[in-house]
Amino acid sequence: MDLWFTEYQTPAVGLACRVTRTLLRQKTAYHDMAILETEAFGRMLVLNGAIQLSTADEFVYHEMLAHVPLQAHGRPRRVLVVGGGDGGTVREVLRHPSVEEVVLAEIDQEVVSACQAYLPEVAGGLSDPRVTLAIGDGVAHVESHPGSYDVILVDSTDPVGPATRLFSREFLESCRRALRPGGVVAAQTESPFYHREVMARCFSDFQATFPVTGVYLAPVPTYPSGLWSFMVGSLGPDPSRPADLDGLAAGATRYYTPEVHRAAFVLPRFVQELVGLVQPAVRP
Amino acid sequence: MDLWFTEYQTPAVGLACRVTRTLLRQKTAYHDMAILETEAFGRMLVLNGAIQLSTADEFVYHEMLAHVPLQAHGRPRRVLVVGGGDGGTVREVLRHPSVEEVVLAEIDQEVVSACQAYLPEVAGGLSDPRVTLAIGDGVAHVESHPGSYDVILVDSTDPVGPATRLFSREFLESCRRALRPGGVVAAQTESPFYHREVMARCFSDFQATFPVTGVYLAPVPTYPSGLWSFMVGSLGPDPSRPADLDGLAAGATRYYTPEVHRAAFVLPRFVQELVGLVQPAVRP
Repeated sequence: MDLWFTEYQTPAVGLACRVTRTLLRQKTAYHDMAILETEAFGRMLVLNGAIQLSTADEFVYHEMLAHVPLQAHGRPRRVLVVGGGDGGTVREVLRHPSVEEVVLAEIDQEVVSACQAYLPEVAGGLSDPRVTLAIGDGVAHVESHPGSYDVILVDSTDPVGPATRLFSREFLESCRRALRPGGVVAAQTESPFYHREVMARCFSDFQATFPVTGVYLAPVPTYPSGLWSFMVGSLGPDPSRPADLDGLAAGATRYYTPEVHRAAFVLPRFVQELVGLVQPAVRP
Repeated sequence: MDLWFTEYQTPAVGLACRVTRTLLRQKTAYHDMAILETEAFGRMLVLNGAIQLSTADEFVYHEMLAHVPLQAHGRPRRVLVVGGGDGGTVREVLRHPSVEEVVLAEIDQEVVSACQAYLPEVAGGLSDPRVTLAIGDGVAHVESHPGSYDVILVDSTDPVGPATRLFSREFLESCRRALRPGGVVAAQTESPFYHREVMARCFSDFQATFPVTGVYLAPVPTYPSGLWSFMVGSLGPDPSRPADLDGLAAGATRYYTPEVHRAAFVLPRFVQELVGLVQPAVRP
């Protein structure tokens, strides 16, 4: 059988993947969830038609969402992941020897259970004794934990439906209050090719909320356009520089290095323009 | 009518684009050529089913193929572009005030004519008095022009069919001989996610041919995986550093900046491993 899954990344662009097996298809309280085995990208988690991860390229996204803010912080002890029920971000957080506790605030228990069953190389870290699962509303969790975390990682789905609130300025304010002194927040913030308005608004919110901010980029082939952005807000550390080169064992990562960390903040001219870091040039 | 074009980037992955108009469909001596107007990516040149450029993202590819070696060289006067019949690379080369002559060695006159007719913002530079069109075999052109060029840019299609020879060590040797002292060669070398063997072999050939070499990356959403690689061989200049910051007018580019130039050579760990710059790590 010639079976294909297509994600319509916009009404005018689709990424089509040949599927070797449908491992799971389930309606949860929040998502139309599927776990597919694809020929090109390995196993894939799909929520409401959108690829959340593939085992071929999730290392880029998860390493860059986790290690940039954790390395910038230097000595993170308590870390919160909002969303990220697949466990990939938690897996990367656990590579930092200073981390004592990771809380995963995920709204959908069934996503967690499905990933534990079908994506053990991604979700395996969730059974680590340092991890606490807080199934429920991530916004409420953040609001009710002031001064609690060294690093908060917002590993959300796209800004539609329940995830919309994770892209609001109010939520960023709550994140700031939930940080300990010297804390750092990082969030996935969509594609500079496809979601310019989302990025522009998000960065304006980060700048209004945090004394130190930054934007960084990484390639994720199964995400729309293949280029993904992240934003970071800090109460102290410069997010574009790793504070402690000994925090992460050399060779533990496949994408991240301290040099990649710094280079990821070097933005192409059009991205500097779209987030307002430079004025748009007048071009011939 | 709901018209879609799908490029099967591999037998298991397709990029599907909604088409608003088919501007041209033509069989040339070398290519099944189409120029499409797409909703997401603007106008698109497709050769033998593979997207060569879209007006939405060609600036990244053409700026990075041209400006990295030209800025590394510093004072390029004579430049050869092999392939690149769409004219986008030539357009970028012409932004360098030191350039006196650009030769375009393109095998397919009909590609040039079609782009001049339908993609004037890409091909417009081809009518510049500094440009010489050399329609014919690029390999023969390079072989017959020893000691002639400051910079050679290999703007080839994928390594199938006639372009295969542009990925051979013999061709790189010819390019080295065609350079003037201090000359630089750069080539597009496919995707680190999809074409690992091509990249590994190409970099080995560059290292065997040139005293100074480098690999750099840039995101191109309409190319397979969205992440593209380039390799550079130099007879003198360090390709990873712009030699002359005044060579290119500030604001002339949408992707390239001198800082982006340096950052593009900072390779993720898995790319360092696949081209043999570091030993593969043993990972848990």
